[in-house]
Amino acid sequence: MIAKKALIGGEWVEAASKDRFEVVSPGDGSVVGTVANCGREDAKKAIAAACEGRKALRKMSLLKRIELLHKAHEIAKKRDREMCDIMCMESGKPMAQSVSEASPVGGYSWSNFHVAMYNVKSHRGLTLPNVTEDNNNKRIFSSYEPIGVVANLSTFSYPSEMPNCTIPYALALGNAVIVKPSMGAPISAILIAEALEEAGFPPGAINVVTGYGTEVGDELVTSPDVQGINLFGQENTCETITQRAGMKKVLAAVVSNNPFIVMDDANIDEAVLSCAQGAYGHNGQSPISTRRVLVHKDVYREFVEKFVAKTRSMKFGNPMEPDTDIGPLNNSKILENTLANLEDARNKGGRFITGGGEPSGLYLEPTIIEDATMDMLITNEPTMGPVVPIMVVESLEDAVEKANATRFGFQVGAFTSSLANAYFLSENIQAGSVYINEATSCWDEMSPFGGVKKSGMGRMLSDWIFNELTNVKMTMFDLAKVK
Amino acid sequence: MIAKKALIGGEWVEAASKDRFEVVSPGDGSVVGTVANCGREDAKKAIAAACEGRKALRKMSLLKRIELLHKAHEIAKKRDREMCDIMCMESGKPMAQSVSEASPVGGYSWSNFHVAMYNVKSHRGLTLPNVTEDNNNKRIFSSYEPIGVVANLSTFSYPSEMPNCTIPYALALGNAVIVKPSMGAPISAILIAEALEEAGFPPGAINVVTGYGTEVGDELVTSPDVQGINLFGQENTCETITQRAGMKKVLAAVVSNNPFIVMDDANIDEAVLSCAQGAYGHNGQSPISTRRVLVHKDVYREFVEKFVAKTRSMKFGNPMEPDTDIGPLNNSKILENTLANLEDARNKGGRFITGGGEPSGLYLEPTIIEDATMDMLITNEPTMGPVVPIMVVESLEDAVEKANATRFGFQVGAFTSSLANAYFLSENIQAGSVYINEATSCWDEMSPFGGVKKSGMGRMLSDWIFNELTNVKMTMFDLAKVK
Amino acid sequence: MIAKKALIGGEWVEAASKDRFEVVSPGDGSVVGTVANCGREDAKKAIAAACEGRKALRKMSLLKRIELLHKAHEIAKKRDREMCDIMCMESGKPMAQSVSEASPVGGYSWSNFHVAMYNVKSHRGLTLPNVTEDNNNKRIFSSYEPIGVVANLSTFSYPSEMPNCTIPYALALGNAVIVKPSMGAPISAILIAEALEEAGFPPGAINVVTGYGTEVGDELVTSPDVQGINLFGQENTCETITQRAGMKKVLAAVVSNNPFIVMDDANIDEAVLSCAQGAYGHNGQSPISTRRVLVHKDVYREFVEKFVAKTRSMKFGNPMEPDTDIGPLNNSKILENTLANLEDARNKGGRFITGGGEPSGLYLEPTIIEDATMDMLITNEPTMGPVVPIMVVESLEDAVEKANATRFGFQVGAFTSSLANAYFLSENIQAGSVYINEATSCWDEMSPFGGVKKSGMGRMLSDWIFNELTNVKMTMFDLAKVK
Amino acid sequence: MIAKKALIGGEWVEAASKDRFEVVSPGDGSVVGTVANCGREDAKKAIAAACEGRKALRKMSLLKRIELLHKAHEIAKKRDREMCDIMCMESGKPMAQSVSEASPVGGYSWSNFHVAMYNVKSHRGLTLPNVTEDNNNKRIFSSYEPIGVVANLSTFSYPSEMPNCTIPYALALGNAVIVKPSMGAPISAILIAEALEEAGFPPGAINVVTGYGTEVGDELVTSPDVQGINLFGQENTCETITQRAGMKKVLAAVVSNNPFIVMDDANIDEAVLSCAQGAYGHNGQSPISTRRVLVHKDVYREFVEKFVAKTRSMKFGNPMEPDTDIGPLNNSKILENTLANLEDARNKGGRFITGGGEPSGLYLEPTIIEDATMDMLITNEPTMGPVVPIMVVESLEDAVEKANATRFGFQVGAFTSSLANAYFLSENIQAGSVYINEATSCWDEMSPFGGVKKSGMGRMLSDWIFNELTNVKMTMFDLAKVK
Repeated sequence: MIAKKALIGGEWVEAASKDRFEVVSPGDGSVVGTVANCGREDAKKAIAAACEGRKALRKMSLLKRIELLHKAHEIAKKRDREMCDIMCMESGKPMAQSVSEASPVGGYSWSNFHVAMYNVKSHRGLTLPNVTEDNNNKRIFSSYEPIGVVANLSTFSYPSEMPNCTIPYALALGNAVIVKPSMGAPISAILIAEALEEAGFPPGAINVVTGYGTEVGDELVTSPDVQGINLFGQENTCETITQRAGMKKVLAAVVSNNPFIVMDDANIDEAVLSCAQGAYGHNGQSPISTRRVLVHKDVYREFVEKFVAKTRSMKFGNPMEPDTDIGPLNNSKILENTLANLEDARNKGGRFITGGGEPSGLYLEPTIIEDATMDMLITNEPTMGPVVPIMVVESLEDAVEKANATRFGFQVGAFTSSLANAYFLSENIQAGSVYINEATSCWDEMSPFGGVKKSGMGRMLSDWIFNELTNVKMTMFDLAKVK
Repeated sequence: MIAKKALIGGEWVEAASKDRFEVVSPGDGSVVGTVANCGREDAKKAIAAACEGRKALRKMSLLKRIELLHKAHEIAKKRDREMCDIMCMESGKPMAQSVSEASPVGGYSWSNFHVAMYNVKSHRGLTLPNVTEDNNNKRIFSSYEPIGVVANLSTFSYPSEMPNCTIPYALALGNAVIVKPSMGAPISAILIAEALEEAGFPPGAINVVTGYGTEVGDELVTSPDVQGINLFGQENTCETITQRAGMKKVLAAVVSNNPFIVMDDANIDEAVLSCAQGAYGHNGQSPISTRRVLVHKDVYREFVEKFVAKTRSMKFGNPMEPDTDIGPLNNSKILENTLANLEDARNKGGRFITGGGEPSGLYLEPTIIEDATMDMLITNEPTMGPVVPIMVVESLEDAVEKANATRFGFQVGAFTSSLANAYFLSENIQAGSVYINEATSCWDEMSPFGGVKKSGMGRMLSDWIFNELTNVKMTMFDLAKVK
Repeated sequence: MIAKKALIGGEWVEAASKDRFEVVSPGDGSVVGTVANCGREDAKKAIAAACEGRKALRKMSLLKRIELLHKAHEIAKKRDREMCDIMCMESGKPMAQSVSEASPVGGYSWSNFHVAMYNVKSHRGLTLPNVTEDNNNKRIFSSYEPIGVVANLSTFSYPSEMPNCTIPYALALGNAVIVKPSMGAPISAILIAEALEEAGFPPGAINVVTGYGTEVGDELVTSPDVQGINLFGQENTCETITQRAGMKKVLAAVVSNNPFIVMDDANIDEAVLSCAQGAYGHNGQSPISTRRVLVHKDVYREFVEKFVAKTRSMKFGNPMEPDTDIGPLNNSKILENTLANLEDARNKGGRFITGGGEPSGLYLEPTIIEDATMDMLITNEPTMGPVVPIMVVESLEDAVEKANATRFGFQVGAFTSSLANAYFLSENIQAGSVYINEATSCWDEMSPFGGVKKSGMGRMLSDWIFNELTNVKMTMFDLAKVK
Repeated sequence: MIAKKALIGGEWVEAASKDRFEVVSPGDGSVVGTVANCGREDAKKAIAAACEGRKALRKMSLLKRIELLHKAHEIAKKRDREMCDIMCMESGKPMAQSVSEASPVGGYSWSNFHVAMYNVKSHRGLTLPNVTEDNNNKRIFSSYEPIGVVANLSTFSYPSEMPNCTIPYALALGNAVIVKPSMGAPISAILIAEALEEAGFPPGAINVVTGYGTEVGDELVTSPDVQGINLFGQENTCETITQRAGMKKVLAAVVSNNPFIVMDDANIDEAVLSCAQGAYGHNGQSPISTRRVLVHKDVYREFVEKFVAKTRSMKFGNPMEPDTDIGPLNNSKILENTLANLEDARNKGGRFITGGGEPSGLYLEPTIIEDATMDMLITNEPTMGPVVPIMVVESLEDAVEKANATRFGFQVGAFTSSLANAYFLSENIQAGSVYINEATSCWDEMSPFGGVKKSGMGRMLSDWIFNELTNVKMTMFDLAKVK
């Protein structure tokens, strides 16, 4: 059985308390392995180590840091199968989706390494004119400096992608990293760290501390020696962290109740496919899963019928089977919350078209709810799982108003064929990303990723994460005041 | 006598409590005028008004917003003399420096209007390739959207510049603004708002609420309807605000103990002039004033002698006189703190070369302290006033180490003639800006402005403030899934 | 009567030959005034003067150059009426359009001054990483340097805008300028130069040499002391110039046969208005006038009827009258060429719906031709004047194919309401600019302007012209190899 | 023996004339192999094929084009040894330098593939504000489109790097490429094309036509179906090509007489090493070789003595030996020209400190000439080979004046330790690149590369070449004029 330690200062170590934690497979309840159950003391050690790691990284040339990332990626490629399997087992994400995320050979989690290694080379400062003094003596330029020690705190929904949204970028820039993975799927992050450590990164450059947020997370967030927090999580976690982090840089992606809109001029067949992808992908547990469907009255019936048919055609079951589309929820706490919200919907008049029965273990049948209203928990609170509340909208304006009637604003999917509608939706919906004729739960590795309102802070991926993980320094030389 | 009201939703109003506050001139203790002493209720009204103002601004074309800013600037020009005089009187900043800041005709505070009006036109998003899907169907672009309602909280040290570091940029972008000026010099901000209101900005676009931070400031910082905070202030204020602001965007410039370094290959005469400017400008009360001087042992004696001579040649006295170089402190609270830190320095062995006697009113004589050490309050805590502790350094490395031995990192001035030294200092000193052969208390209107560590968050001026006051939105069109 | 000299090296001088040239009004044949008829010798003198002017400009601070541009603009504002009237008289462009171009108070020609003065401040180089050597010793940056002496050669179609597409940008950057205006409307450029000279630009910074292309133009194009050519003209001129210019930087906008497309899902009423604007504005003599109209068969009849009605409702006549929409051609050479192309169209089966009679003086009645075909001169060769050949298209693909069946590619206007059509047209038409639901003969002052294929070289306006008028210099410092 | 054909439209073919050409090794006069001796007819076929290739490339997704480049690079890696050996043999470049250039595993020529594959992803257009019309109806964006068919014409001095300065960038962007290598070393380019063809690029995407410039080159330059020329060559070639290319985009790097400056505050030992590298690398035949050395009088004697000693310590001889520093010239035409310039130098008073005897075959002994003057051919005309004329300079200003006294301006190397000198040299020398404390014959793969004056047109490498090989298109949507 798998037994993993924490990585602190280049050493694989047990928790100071010697405690360990069992990682249980949501698919069949078996124990996938154990990890160190670290506490505040371990976090402190990791922070101290990261301070050293950061100094070592900055002395390295950029080319050397890139070379080490390349080496780590090559090492990971040799453990392709293992990485995919473990991620599937510990998270319950269906195998095909696990491969598409975690595979070092072709998965998107590892694309971050390519972007980090190559695009860091075009993260450039500026030479600036002197426009404040009426002479030619001043030369000004800006440059980017690594912020220092960066902590990555993530959830089980993308056990490989979420850590890798920080790791390669931070290291390429010269920051040290401390990863605190979700206890719902912690091993994938450890495997990434193993590759980095084997590649020869200096001690403390990359650390992994498995443990609970109240101990490990809180120490990382409050320590004066951590300069940046890259968080993936729920709203209350993010609120707490921003309050406790004070003047630190916080970069956050928060689980949201993302809408999906179908207008009367939409290609309905494509809308159905996209909606299924957005709502059921990652078992409906992604921060950017589709969680509310708003359909124009003129195409409402057609859409619902086709969407129910599509849902029924999807394979629901054991995530380890290669053709499974929808698997179990990750853990019982999430399941309970989802069931409570479903119960609330039922009480408030929601009609269950599919699903609605008792879950089997962590398996919750795909659930489509008509007559959903904006006063239900299921439409207001991000509810994890393959759960789809559907509402009718009267017009474009109505769709926008309902899409915006939330404290969140991460992603929106919307189907329309018109130029004017496309821009109207893009510009009037309050969100970080608007996808016209595409599902939510989507991104592009070279485009900005993040939300507005309570959906997050800052932007990730490519140049945007480089900006977040650096400070702009301004240097001015006065050439006339030399000796 | 001047009696000003608050500006809320396009109306000039008294505080709900009807309370008023006397603005006293630090120069002679006379009453400059009175302003409304607003409280939490007034702040709430301003926030509600700003929510309306923001909607009105967004419906306007960019050209229209620029036109209104232009009109406001033209209106302000007609009140040039008044604006300079009032700022000098209420803040105690020497007249020449007050003119150079507050004059709508040529002052730097109003340069922000030009930068905002013209450079907003080149605040552009990107068209992005689709590099995640292997087809030609996706079109992606990013755009900038105003974040919403922005609060500006500032100090008396730049009563005109600090509000204008937010106002024109925010309005040009389509954000509504609520200004809470320092009670140490609140009228200047009101005069700016008068020009904007007269120019015809829609109600709620620009609001001024004079009052205390515990009431007005706290409401602005904690309200869910304020999206951004642009703060100028001291460390403890900034820490409190970031904790209470939660997921809001906070942009902050914090009063710091900025070092000034003189290397052995420096042009000493120029270094002396720059040091005097950095230390005594704005009566030593700027966030970016020089507050520690580090001189290489080989030129130490020469530098100190010349610096003392220069200090003695400067005119100290009534700020309203046109040739005054150094005036009074702004208020007794600041004076007391400075005196306590001077006392501490004396107790720990500091030798007072100039100054050190009793202050007269708020007038504290320029004070040069030799044998300063890193364990004195005066070197560790940003101490306002014309106070200059001097230390010897042995080498370039020693200078860098001492410069970095602080929790702050805003600006550094350093004199050297060598290419290698210039870059070594620029790259190894932890600061937002490094000025080689130039004083601290310096900036360029088209360059990034801000600090690291406890000196602040984010970057201001030109493109940088445009970035801070907007959210990046990503839009994706799939062209193949249309009807 | 107006009598203008050439401006060479800060002096207003006659041609070496003492020859003068009469500027005749196309509207009524009266003499507007006379200008110096300069030759090769005068051009040589201007080049020598510009070499001095360039040195003087580079020694100036950027702020000083901006200040002089500002002053020149203020001076021009005092001659607002004069500038508009003269431009109308000498070019024959209808008064309303002349004002909208030439007015220093609100005309677009002078917007170039604002863009040049303010946006030059954000024309910035880069600080670049060293990614070729595995150490931390290298510092690299790029900067922009003025190319040197820039010649502007233009036509009568925009006597104010075309010179101003170079002048303020070049001067802001530190280049010297030599303007050779069209002999069809040379006085407007002289008026601009008068304002600049009066503002105090150093001798040689701005020069105007009125004369023919074979002498003055050719000397400017072939002299080794001119580094850049900014040309507006016809294809054969541009071909000749690029051949004779050798390794010089050539930036060119060429008169083209720009298409206008109306799809079956278009808003026909708006399409009619836009088409009239694109085809008849500037008397159809702009490089970017609409010169071919392609209408989808399903809306063909409706469009033609409405377009004929619109054409008949427009006022055709004396350009000096404030409500004239369409005026005369600029000169008889142009008229003859247009008449020949009309004759060719008639011979090849074109049906004249409006116009087609004898011109009166330089006045050619607005002429709409149905059954136009791609083998007519009128569709293949850019034909100046209010002349509109119309063709039917069967489909989107057919529209694109016909639009591309030309050696030109400047601007295209196209009306459609669909998202997919809009992008298909934008991406498949070979042109510098594609306007969906807008006319050709359009631009935005902050967007790139220029054509592909034989329509031009390079891009003008804002950042793009700054790039064209500068050289990128790369500087590398090795910090480890100092003494 | 090696016998290579031309690659036209995906087929390896003989010249239409069936002629072949012998490639002779400069090292020992042996025949390395033969290539097709193509003429105008073959060039025409290649152009026709490239027109098809271009269409095929544009239909491909960006990801697919990147994948093919990746595959080609992997294929090349399997022929590492062969590529290095052949390049060494055919060009005479010393083996160590040949490996450092041509090796697909680690050579700089192949770094272009990485930059092209990854950085093309951040070659982005802009979303632009509408600042010309006072409404919110317009949406504007810019995008980059491939220019079409690009021809690469190069010399023997970098037989692998020069073709690769175009090939991967052009293909990544969707342009088709026609390579015409130098007949002095044509096989290396063919080997690159073999890898690309094997990788599966569509027919016509990449073509190689070996032949003479008068036939093949001229057809490529004058054909209306070739949109861009990327030239490496001598001044007269470049002048001719720009004249014949007309409105085509020409991007050129021209052989120049690059200066190297040593100031009195320089680190002389490092200056000597850099100078030897700049002057003798690539047998002194690079466009950017050091060709004039300017030494401050105070360090003149020391520099010359150390430089002569360094020169004598270098290994001169057979390029195939792994430790050879300096090899033969490429061909007898070049040798003759160099000997004539040496003879001229001797006649005008040049003192030969090393070298100056008869060459042996193509081997010309490293030649240092004191008392060089600005009226010698050797200082005015770029003279190929290990030839170093040295001059004394009196001051910084004198150094700059002498460095600028030439019609060229490609690269300058200069040694100084002072901040002010470093900037003075950087800003006052007319050149594309200024290297402080580094040799000429240097670049960075992410920095702009190119010259001013007669040294070239445009800028290559990374973003700069992406800009040169694309056209900026502007698209505007009016959202209010839809149906």
